[in-house]
Order: sequence, then structure tokens, then C-alpha cells
Amino acid sequence: MHEINKQSGTAFKIKKGQKLKVVDPEGEQVSDMVLFNAKDRREKLSSGKTMDFEESILLTTKNFLWSNRSQKMLEILEDTNGRNDFLLAPCSPETFEIMYNYDGYHPSCFENLYTSLEPFNIQPDDIPNAFNIFMNVQFDEKGKLSVDPPLSKAGDYVLFEAKMDLIIGLTACSAEDSNNGTFKPIHYEVLD
Amino acid sequence: MHEINKQSGTAFKIKKGQKLKVVDPEGEQVSDMVLFNAKDRREKLSSGKTMDFEESILLTTKNFLWSNRSQKMLEILEDTNGRNDFLLAPCSPETFEIMYNYDGYHPSCFENLYTSLEPFNIQPDDIPNAFNIFMNVQFDEKGKLSVDPPLSKAGDYVLFEAKMDLIIGLTACSAEDSNNGTFKPIHYEVLD
Repeated sequence: MHEINKQSGTAFKIKKGQKLKVVDPEGEQVSDMVLFNAKDRREKLSSGKTMDFEESILLTTKNFLWSNRSQKMLEILEDTNGRNDFLLAPCSPETFEIMYNYDGYHPSCFENLYTSLEPFNIQPDDIPNAFNIFMNVQFDEKGKLSVDPPLSKAGDYVLFEAKMDLIIGLTACSAEDSNNGTFKPIHYEVLD
Repeated sequence: MHEINKQSGTAFKIKKGQKLKVVDPEGEQVSDMVLFNAKDRREKLSSGKTMDFEESILLTTKNFLWSNRSQKMLEILEDTNGRNDFLLAPCSPETFEIMYNYDGYHPSCFENLYTSLEPFNIQPDDIPNAFNIFMNVQFDEKGKLSVDPPLSKAGDYVLFEAKMDLIIGLTACSAEDSNNGTFKPIHYEVLD
């Protein structure tokens, strides 16, 4: 089991057929995930294709995550928490300026994703909308969005299976609103 | 006033400060719109940034459309219909295969966008999630999505103001479910 320290990120490859387990070890923490085809990085995770083909804003067990080329990238095999979405972009320096009125440097998922993915020749502009694992974005019937503390308890996990060879970027979220004002690690494991 | 013929698309530039009026001339028709910074095409429309900064799934008067670099691209000045979103990807050949079980060639917004944008050196992989103007995507409290006939009446329009110089791709939607099984034109006008 690997640990992603609080407010940081990582990137790694997995092969088609391998499984990825993303764990919230302490509870109430969010992980942002982005995906790229390991053989052609211009094929990547698409929030629009995924919500379209899965006909749902919320994604859980039995749903697939799709690429911009309409191919399956990951399947969700198990999900002990059950709330994950694509609604909000990875937190970025501008998130803290615009949404938090925060002055000065603040770690962010966006920076943690693009710095982790740089060795794979992936640039900041290439980062797609992330899959927000364990994130608790609430919406009302008028579409108004709010971010509530995650519902995940210590040990909750999502288990994915790769449907193609992938480069994966993964974070332990840096934003106060996403994780009830605390910063915690995320654990992950790649299984054959 | 320009006409986009049924099941087709177009692309054009507008300058910062110019206005774009997108009109549904007959009612119950959808238009997919994508945006690129005219000075650097790697900056483009971001559904995630827009829903994040506007805190809403549905976007209407006074909302902004934001880029992947957290910059404002368009402001919605007027919206006589009031239902527009980013939820579903532009219809593509795979949409008709996977969602409609349709066999053979079918025109699609995705093809119409990338062929129209090719002269601006924009490739299919560069097409972001589109802003779905007049589209009536319904969602329930569990996030389940369905596409209903548009609520737009003949003459309904959305008026935008450009916050930067833009390349715009715009379609008259090709998908049966989006426009109540009919195919109709979309009109647009660029105003100083």
C-alpha cells in the first residue's frame, strides 16, 4: 500500500486488467484522479463522455470512466462509500484566490497533478476534469452546488479495473472545503 | 444574422467586447458551443472550472463561462429560455452507436465541431465538453440524467459578451433526443 501525503499527489502507470484500490485511511478525505492512455496521452478522461454514457452525475459500482475518444478507461468494481463525481474542477491556485479569497501560496490538486505528471510529458493545459473520489458535492433541483464534508469513513475505498494501459494522476486533496477543514493522506494499491 | 443549417456546424472568431447572439429560430433546438482563446488555442472552455466558479450545474444570465486557465471567456448577458448546461458531451458517432444502437453514418455535433475548427488548427482530441445551449438535461436527486425536449420557443436566444478574443465552434444539434426528434437550424449574430 502506497501513501500520498496530505496536500500532495503522485502519478504512475498501470496495465490493462490491473486493479487500483484508492483508500481513505482516516475518513473525510477526497482524492482527485485523472487518466491518460499510456500509449497516446492525447486520449484522456472525459467527464462529459462519462456522464453521457453512464447517464448519471454520480458514479459508483458498475459504472465505467470513459475517454474523450469514447473508450472505456476504468471500471468501478467496488465502492464502499458511494459518492464520487466530476462536477468541480481540481482545486488550483485560482480556486483559493476566487472561491476562498485566500492571499498567498496554497497547495492545490491542480499543481500536484501537473507536477506529478510532468515526467510523463503531460503539461498543465492537458489536465482534464478530475474524477472526484469520495467528494461530497451536493446539488439541488435548480443545479445549485455546494461542497459538504465527505461521507467517507476510515477505510472506505473504491476499487477500479483498468480497461486499457493507463497513466494515472492521483492526489490527497488540498482544499479545506472538500475535506471538512482537515488535510489527510490517501492510500492506494495496484493489484494484479 | 447567420444560419447554421440543420445537423451542421460552423466556426468563427470574435473580439473581446463583441457580443454573440445564439437564436433558436423555430424552437426545441439545441446548439453546442466550444471556445478557444484566439491567441493561444491551448486555453479553452472548461466545464469543471465553470461549474466550480459559478457554483451551479445550470448556467444563465449573469453567469460566466471560464477557461481551463481560470479566465473568463464569455459572460451571459441575456437568456430568454434559461436552461443550458455542460452535463453531456457533444453527440458523436459513438453516441449513436452506444446510446441509440444506430447502425451506419449519422451526422454529429462532434464531427461538425472538429471539421469546422480544423481551419483554426484545432484537432478532434482538442474539443472540450461543449456548452449545451437550450438543452434540457434533467437530473434527479440521485444524479440520474435524462434528455427531455428543449423548453425553448421560436425566437428564444442567449446573448453573450466576449471577455477575450475567441475562436468559437457552434452547431445545430444532430441528435434526435436533444431536439424532440426534429432537426432544425440555429441562427447567430455577432454584434459590436
